[in-house]
Order: sequence, then structure tokens, then C-alpha cells
Amino acid sequence: MQDGTLLAALDLGSNSFRLEIGRYHGGHIERVEYLKETVRIGAGLDESHNLSRAAMERGWACLARFAEKLRGFERRQVRAVATQTLREARNRDVFLERGQALLGFPIEVIAGHEEARLIYQGVTHLLPQSDERRLVMDIGGRSTEIILGQGYSPQRMESYPLGSVTWSTRYFPEGRFTERGLRTAIVAAQAVLDQALEIFVPGQWDTVYASSGTAGALSEILTLAGFEPGLITREGLDWLVQRLLRVGRVDQIRLEGLKDDRRPVLAGGLSVLLAAFELFGWRVVHRAQGALRQGALFDLIDRASDQTDARERTVRWLAQKFAVDAAQAERVQRVATALFEQIATPDPRNGRYSQKLAWAARLHEIGAHISHTDAHKHGAYILDHVDAPGFSLAELHRLSLLVLGQRGKLRKVESALDDELFVKQLISLRLAVILCHARKDPDMPALQLRQGPGPVFTLRSIAGWAQRYPQSAWLLQEEAHAWERAPWKLRLALA
Amino acid sequence: MQDGTLLAALDLGSNSFRLEIGRYHGGHIERVEYLKETVRIGAGLDESHNLSRAAMERGWACLARFAEKLRGFERRQVRAVATQTLREARNRDVFLERGQALLGFPIEVIAGHEEARLIYQGVTHLLPQSDERRLVMDIGGRSTEIILGQGYSPQRMESYPLGSVTWSTRYFPEGRFTERGLRTAIVAAQAVLDQALEIFVPGQWDTVYASSGTAGALSEILTLAGFEPGLITREGLDWLVQRLLRVGRVDQIRLEGLKDDRRPVLAGGLSVLLAAFELFGWRVVHRAQGALRQGALFDLIDRASDQTDARERTVRWLAQKFAVDAAQAERVQRVATALFEQIATPDPRNGRYSQKLAWAARLHEIGAHISHTDAHKHGAYILDHVDAPGFSLAELHRLSLLVLGQRGKLRKVESALDDELFVKQLISLRLAVILCHARKDPDMPALQLRQGPGPVFTLRSIAGWAQRYPQSAWLLQEEAHAWERAPWKLRLALA
Repeated sequence: MQDGTLLAALDLGSNSFRLEIGRYHGGHIERVEYLKETVRIGAGLDESHNLSRAAMERGWACLARFAEKLRGFERRQVRAVATQTLREARNRDVFLERGQALLGFPIEVIAGHEEARLIYQGVTHLLPQSDERRLVMDIGGRSTEIILGQGYSPQRMESYPLGSVTWSTRYFPEGRFTERGLRTAIVAAQAVLDQALEIFVPGQWDTVYASSGTAGALSEILTLAGFEPGLITREGLDWLVQRLLRVGRVDQIRLEGLKDDRRPVLAGGLSVLLAAFELFGWRVVHRAQGALRQGALFDLIDRASDQTDARERTVRWLAQKFAVDAAQAERVQRVATALFEQIATPDPRNGRYSQKLAWAARLHEIGAHISHTDAHKHGAYILDHVDAPGFSLAELHRLSLLVLGQRGKLRKVESALDDELFVKQLISLRLAVILCHARKDPDMPALQLRQGPGPVFTLRSIAGWAQRYPQSAWLLQEEAHAWERAPWKLRLALA
Repeated sequence: MQDGTLLAALDLGSNSFRLEIGRYHGGHIERVEYLKETVRIGAGLDESHNLSRAAMERGWACLARFAEKLRGFERRQVRAVATQTLREARNRDVFLERGQALLGFPIEVIAGHEEARLIYQGVTHLLPQSDERRLVMDIGGRSTEIILGQGYSPQRMESYPLGSVTWSTRYFPEGRFTERGLRTAIVAAQAVLDQALEIFVPGQWDTVYASSGTAGALSEILTLAGFEPGLITREGLDWLVQRLLRVGRVDQIRLEGLKDDRRPVLAGGLSVLLAAFELFGWRVVHRAQGALRQGALFDLIDRASDQTDARERTVRWLAQKFAVDAAQAERVQRVATALFEQIATPDPRNGRYSQKLAWAARLHEIGAHISHTDAHKHGAYILDHVDAPGFSLAELHRLSLLVLGQRGKLRKVESALDDELFVKQLISLRLAVILCHARKDPDMPALQLRQGPGPVFTLRSIAGWAQRYPQSAWLLQEEAHAWERAPWKLRLALA
């Protein structure tokens, strides 16, 4: 990445939306601008998991303001990620469609696992470089991420459905802070975090870091109360609990360092952190500066190179985990991307789509780990549910649709066939799977794929090809048949 | 297994139903009786994959006749398996319900993979014992199984959706046998079998065997025509093709050894076998005596011991393939079966249900290979789709339901809650998962689970337990809450 490039990251959290703009400079990022708005879309989620119109309006207004700051940015310079509230919201597409139009950039709803990875990136990039084994805990509004890693490498990342907003609402209604309420909140938090003990076993890390709003607010309050700056200690938290219990109300207490927008969610966040202190037996936790948005910024740098693109690493890791036949996967990748190139019309999106087609090709047999029967369906299921660092949910679902549509009838991917670039990816993959059916390299120079005129693809062969490969020719005829009822056709000119 | 025990196997095939009764004797099975009826339920499958009433009636009538032969047999002595037609039939439950009532024994619809395994067992048990690497091909009415193995161990097994009935109907309508029809049938068969070349690579076996009806009929015809007995050679098949082409009609040809019930499906079976000869480059194939029903008989012997039960091996293999935490799986298994024992009322089915609960416990975390988030759902998906030697589809689905219901709301397994034994399995597994939450052995002597009076389970603890394990106590309270709206309740008497 060129020095001086501007980069922007948006974090659409449950409590606030944040925009961080930085300038890339010799591997580091210098802050250019930071904006935060307390939008609280998380509070607009009703019982049936629908986002209220009012919450959407607040979000849209904020995005429109952020958009002003992003004028002149290119797509590769911006990453906007949305977390728990939009993961949960059933009507998220309504919000996203208008939100993306206002913002002018795509908004990626990311899985908790991916959120955890980005948080770790953000935290660790703003800490001194070291071989220290780090445990990072990020208590968000509606989800809490825990990550174990060393240096820049996260090793285990998990996301748990509890946070400062949900715990405040549920256990400290109307700002009341009682001994009994606190105890219930802690036990309930431990019931959720309990699973974390399976994965994060004390002894695996040297230092514990807490990032994001809850940790920032607590650290600020404790520092101003005279405790050691930058640390959250058990003693400090006990002191704070005693103060809160004496007053009995978070909404009325006067505490130096407690900001008004933090007040309604302080008790919930505190109870989650206390639960973790007890569960893991911590005495002290370090306040971390970095957070999700910084992680998203550093990820933009990583994505600029194949060597460091987290998605590239994930594809490799998944292929291994599900024991994919590497030679065949690579063969289908080569053939599919070569075919895609033959029908690519000039379009700035081609590079990105070819890359994603390559990933789909490399994972197209992933479902055979479950069964050869309907392996394409199992592959799609896996991609729709697997933890896949670096990918957004929508991106993964795209790969899943390609894997699902790799063979057989087209009806199962019908909904995506109005997207021309998807159709090109799909037909490239399907033809590649057919041409590589014998698990040998096909005679590609003998074949040529062309688009048009109209919604038609034509596959031509040189003379003699069909006779040399009767099996491939037969499978291609079945393929042409499969496209007969689709909005796009495949014509064969095989000789 | 005791010498002299009678064993019976039923094979409910697409073309015929077969009953084989044998007597166990020093590791071998001596034939006592063999019945075959050409029921052709496969022909009764309509386009929307529904079995016609007439086909059902033919099947039921046959089962009623077979049932007479099975009077006095116990459940462990009988295994009835159904294959492709019932795998496909959408309304199979209608057929099965009455069929099982008439037969007096459960009918297991088995996956193609399991069918392949049983065929290999049947074939190899009737061959001389040897270290020979064997490839077995079984062309059935609607599916063809291919298995690679050595001695008694099948190593790769697959099932492909083509067979003598389907290929005859599709490519040799009204018994016409033409050069062109034959060529098309072979190419189409190769298009399906093509995938087999990925898995079964020439050079991996010493001898090829063909089992079941098609192979038997062809071998019979060729032997009577003067070819070497017990073998099917390329020359023999070429001779037969020439004879059929000269007459042009399978329904009219006079061929020594061709039985009337084989005549309508001979051409299809022949074309599938020819396709395999070409694809794999065979010169000669050996006729095998054993088949699915013998495999099912030998499997009854294997099931009598844990050491040889194929299902036990499968559970072990799956746990490994999906990287299950073995220590935790075993811990949950121990606790779950101990709890199940505490609420087991005298019932001959208890042993079987406890065994299945143990398997579910050992696989309950299998879905974490996809993601920790919703791991129980992924586990259920895997069990509903994975190739699982030894298990019937219904048996696997039972395990899948237990894995799905291991935690959270009970609504997702609601349909199974009217089965008391399932409820007992389920509550045992759920409580075991809770009690083992810290991945440590729970204090079992301190706890006691009881059933009744009425649809109620009561979990009691000795004094002090709840204080020593507040987290477990909290999770148990949530568990009691989960049962509140179910037909069964959980009461807690924790102290």
C-alpha cells in the first residue's frame, strides 16, 4: 500500500457508530479524524428482533453525516462493519439498503467470530510489539468478544451474546443498583461465559486486556478515583461496587469521569466484567486502546496483498480442516478463473469477482467431508455457518451460493441469477467442474467461452475435441440443458 | 452369539423382496430358508416420487407372507433393510407403518453408503478368506453400489443413482434393443459413474466382483452359452450384445438362462455393467454369491458384540473426523448413561436406548467443527447427512434429534417428546451437558434423578451441593424453566 493513502473504518455498533479516518504511513496508521455518535440502534430492537423505524432513522442520519467525510474515497480505502444488533435484526436488509446508498460504500454485517478477530487486530496493533500471549476481552453493547493471541496472530476468538446494553436493561432496570440485582447479573453472565472456560484456559496467556467503551469508562473512573492509571483492578471494581450500592442508583450517582452517554449502560458492563474476573480468577486487567475500528483499518492494509489477506488464509485453513483434495481444488480454480476471464467485459469489479470465484473453486468440494451424496449442499451449509476470519456474512453467503450451484439444477440459486457477474462466476465454476471431471487438467487451448449477443454464453471447441473427450461432451450437453429454463443460455459449438 | 441361533434378514429392494433365514454356527451361517418375490415396488414410484397404492399393496402382501416365517423370532434375530425406492419415496412412512405392523419387526431404510457396506459384508463372507484387495460392484434396480475393501474390511463405499430398472425404462423402452440406445445408455451411465473414478482408482484392487441380480443373470446366460463359469468377460458381454442387437428386442429374444422376471431389466443392467467395464478398463469380472441380505445377517452377529458393532466403529471414526474433544465426550457419556439408569423403569428396550444415548453423548459436540455458535444445530445437520456405516436413516435421525436438543429450548425437538424413552434420553443428555459444563467430572454421588409420580423428573442433591456448585445450580434452574411448557417437567430439590 502506498504511503500517504487515506483509510477509513466505520464501526456500526449497538450503542454507537464510529468513524475513524487514518493515513497509512510506513506500516502505521496516523489518526486523521475520529467521530463517534451515540445512535443506540440496539435499543431499537423489539422482541421479534425487528429494528424500529426510529432507530433506523437515527442510524441513517448518522451515516449521511459520515458520508460527507468520505467523499473522494475509493472502495478499497473504506471498510464499514456492523455487529450484533444488525446480526440479529430480521429487517436488517431494509436498514442496509438505504444505509449503503447514503454512505456510498457497502456495509458488511460480520459474524461475532470476525468481529473478535478485528478487535484483536485493533488492540494488538496499538500495543508495543511483543511475543506476549494476550487475552483480549471486549464488552460491547450486545455482544462480548474474547480473543487469545500472540503478537499479531489471534489464535482463538469467540463471541458471546451478552453486553453492557442487554445486561443493564435486564438486571438493572431504571438504573437501580442493588446487591441482589448485581449478584443475579453476575451469575447470569457467568452462565453465558461459562463456555469460554472450555476454550480459554487460564495459564494460556500472560496479560489480559479489556477494550472498548465499558473498559474505557471503568478505567477512567478508577484512575480519577486514585487507582493506578491504565489498569482495572479487583480492588478498584470492589470500591466502585460499594459506591454504587451506597447510592443505589446509577442514574443519579455523581462519579468523576462518568459520561452521560455511558451512565445507562455502566452497571451492565460492570457486572459482565466482574463475572469474568471471578470466572477466570483475574486480579488485574489492562486497559487497551485499540478496538474494532482500528482492526478494520489494519485489515484494509492486509487485504491489499494476497500474502496478508485474512480471507486467503481462511480459505487455506478451511480446505485443510475439511480435508479438501488440494490438487483438484487448484485445478478447478485455474480453469474457472480462466473461463471467467474469457467472458469478462471491462468492469472495475472483475478483479474482486475473480478472486471470489477462485475461493469458491478452492472450497467447492468442502462438503464431501460430510458425504459425497449432495456434497454441494453440505458445502453450502458449511460456508453459511463456519467461522471464517476476514469474511463478512454476505460475502460468505455468496461463496455458499456458488458452491451450492456448482452442479445440478439452477433453480436452487435462482434468486441470484439476475446478477450478471454472479452468473458469470457460476457458469465458469460449473464448466470448470465438468471439464475437470476426470481429475485431470483439461485441454483448455481447445476451448473458448464467449458471451453474447444477448444473454447467451457460447462454448466452442476446436475440431476433434468432442471425439477425444466424449464424456466431457456428454456432460456439457446436460449442462446446456440445465440452462434452458434460466434467464441465461449456454450454447455449444463442439466439434 | 450362541451356536444354533436362528437369524433372518429381509432385503426390500426395488425389484424384489428377499428373505434369508440362516442358523449361526461357529462363525458361519447355514442357510435354513430363502424366499424371493418379484414385487417391483420400484416401478410404482411416480414422477413426484410417491409410491403408488398398488405397489404398496404388493409389498404389504409379501411382508405378511414373510411374517409367517418369522413367528417366534426376537428382535435381535431379525434385520429388515429397505433401499433406493424407499429412500426416494416421499410417502414412505405410509408404507413403513403398515409394513412394520404386518411384519412384526422394524424396517430400516438405509443410506446408499450403508447398503454398500452390507453388500461388501455379504460378498466377502461368502468368498474364501484372503488378503486380496477386492472391488465389489452391485447393480441393483435403482442404485448401484461400489465398494473397495480388503478381507472383511470395506474401505471406500459409494452408492450411485442408476440401476437395471431405471436404465431399462429410460434407454430401452418397450424392450427395444438398438445400437444407438445401447450407446446412449452407456454414455449416460458413465456420466454418473464418472465420479466413481475419483474414489476408485484402478490399481487399488486385485480382483473385481459383481454381485446381485444383474450379475447373476448375466453370468448364468454366459455360462450356458459356453463361456467360463463364474466369470463375466468382456468377450462374453460382446457376444451377448451382438445377439441382442440381431434380435433387436429383449422382450422376444430366446436366451438360455434368461428368466422371465429378469427379462424386462436385463438391457439396463447390461448397459450399466458395460459402462463400468469401459470406464475402469476391466477385462473380466468375477460373479460373487453374497449380497445385501447376507451382509445384513452377518451384521446381526457383529452387533451382538461392542467390539464388532459397526455403529460403534462409526461413532469412533466420526468423533475423530470432526475433531471432538474425546475426554469431554466420554465424560458426558458416562454421566448421561448413569442418569438414564436412574430413571429407567423395567423395559426390555432400555439397553438399546442407553447405547444410543451413549453414542449421542459421544458425538454431541461434533458440530463445533463447523462453529461453536449453534454447534448443536450443526451437529444435528452433520448426523442427518453424514455417511455412517451400520446405522439406518431413522436411527441416525434419532441421534441427530438428541444432539439438536442437547441445550436451549425444547420446541425444536417437540415432535419427539411424546415418546417417553426419548424424553428420558434427552433429559439425561441435557443434564449431563450441564453437570459437565466446566469440563470436569461432576460430583455424581451427591445427585439423584427420579421419575414420577406423573410426567415429572426430580433432581435432588445432598446438602451443600448447590453452594459448592452455584454455576451448575443456576444452569439447572434455567433447565427446569426450559421444561415448563413441555409435556414433561423437571423439578429441582437442590440443597
